[in-house]
Amino acid sequence: MFEVEKTIRFHHCDPAGIVFFPQYLVLCHEVIEDWIESGIGVGYSNLLRTRGLGTPTVRLQTEYLARSSFGDRLRFRLGVRKLGNSSMTLSICADMKGEERMRTEIVTVMVDVATFRPVRIPDDIRTAMQRYALEPGHEW
Amino acid sequence: MFEVEKTIRFHHCDPAGIVFFPQYLVLCHEVIEDWIESGIGVGYSNLLRTRGLGTPTVRLQTEYLARSSFGDRLRFRLGVRKLGNSSMTLSICADMKGEERMRTEIVTVMVDVATFRPVRIPDDIRTAMQRYALEPGHEW
Amino acid sequence: MFEVEKTIRFHHCDPAGIVFFPQYLVLCHEVIEDWIESGIGVGYSNLLRTRGLGTPTVRLQTEYLARSSFGDRLRFRLGVRKLGNSSMTLSICADMKGEERMRTEIVTVMVDVATFRPVRIPDDIRTAMQRYALEPGHEW
Amino acid sequence: MFEVEKTIRFHHCDPAGIVFFPQYLVLCHEVIEDWIESGIGVGYSNLLRTRGLGTPTVRLQTEYLARSSFGDRLRFRLGVRKLGNSSMTLSICADMKGEERMRTEIVTVMVDVATFRPVRIPDDIRTAMQRYALEPGHEW
Repeated sequence: MFEVEKTIRFHHCDPAGIVFFPQYLVLCHEVIEDWIESGIGVGYSNLLRTRGLGTPTVRLQTEYLARSSFGDRLRFRLGVRKLGNSSMTLSICADMKGEERMRTEIVTVMVDVATFRPVRIPDDIRTAMQRYALEPGHEW
Repeated sequence: MFEVEKTIRFHHCDPAGIVFFPQYLVLCHEVIEDWIESGIGVGYSNLLRTRGLGTPTVRLQTEYLARSSFGDRLRFRLGVRKLGNSSMTLSICADMKGEERMRTEIVTVMVDVATFRPVRIPDDIRTAMQRYALEPGHEW
Repeated sequence: MFEVEKTIRFHHCDPAGIVFFPQYLVLCHEVIEDWIESGIGVGYSNLLRTRGLGTPTVRLQTEYLARSSFGDRLRFRLGVRKLGNSSMTLSICADMKGEERMRTEIVTVMVDVATFRPVRIPDDIRTAMQRYALEPGHEW
Repeated sequence: MFEVEKTIRFHHCDPAGIVFFPQYLVLCHEVIEDWIESGIGVGYSNLLRTRGLGTPTVRLQTEYLARSSFGDRLRFRLGVRKLGNSSMTLSICADMKGEERMRTEIVTVMVDVATFRPVRIPDDIRTAMQRYALEPGHEW
């Protein structure tokens, strides 16, 4: 699985002093960017700019298991739940010192950004992604 | 059902020119604020400041059905799917001229913000919320 | 001067319970969008999409005069301080019931978004903008 | 001077593909958090939670010198321009491989977050901050 640490920033938090829930998904998108960059080795910005490929999100479900506060240092882990022709289901969870804070499954589709039509995930990317496949029935 | 319109702003959109998916949830939180303010008649900021109550999100699922772009004017509708002792499940969908763009179910829990312990939804709020209850099996 | 009201939202506020300062500038950009839309009558999104014009910010200065909290309803006013060939200086201030909260001057340049080269502000837009010119020495 | 690198993320960028200008100030706040944490050695979150101190921004001016895009890796540098009794003026600039992108001066005031009254910057923090003082007339 791909792992990366993130610090909860002042701007992630709300007047109740905890992470505002959509900000977790902004952080998850950073995790996906980091994964494509250093896990897959392609560079998320190159994907968009050089290859003209985007990965809009079509579906997600998220559980917020414990609250996180400003200054917390979270570990995010990402695995590939399913890899279709053009879609992929990513599982991401975050914990702090073993206390699970959030888990989410995000379904994205690879598209040509000029037309937003789905395209087959290119083979070089597909092969690299398969290294992060979760075992069937994997629980976080 | 509670209805409110929102304009997609420049800052909601990403380099692909469409709404960045977590921004939809920021907009949904605005819809909840609007609902508590004018539908329930309490004032979301008073809820937090005067009564010391918060509504952190514990679970959500979202479907992105069609993309929205900068300048689009969306109609959001909110209904109450389930009303527990301290938790509530809210259904929110957004469309533009009948084309559905997003739907989500958000489970929040009412808590005392001093302790983050769940509290029973106060009766005045509960009664007002029941007016927005969805029929069993309601589909958007 | 162009006037529009904005509500301070939960997501604008920080753990200290007040507007996080960059969020004021996000709100000011909304004010500029509203002004171009209903004051100038062009539609900010059309500007970008149909005419291929953007207005990146090149300089700004901002004073935060009093703090704003979640639920506050602010009045924003916008005037044109200077209108150059391709640049314009906009003055925006926000108050709540006469108590001034923020004032800013934002210098933007009209560019061709394909090349980011400055272009002359088109005459129809220029003429409409001149109606919002501030008197020399105007103080808020 | 304090130095830290930051990556321009997808969510920092707008439909024109470049950093949305208020996002630079969000990044600058991250730089201030990093500086207080590892430069001053206090921990910005402790400042707020343990000592009850906040640093709201009262004034800023920013120049956007060249545009930054998704994937750019910027170097931010911070120095202390002025250290008053309770206020401080911070200079922050960002460059990529020597090409300057943004510079800003941010004036913040140290306050008691319970009352928002200015308080004298505590001596341990003041002494640590003086190590980052810019020479008079320092130009970036």
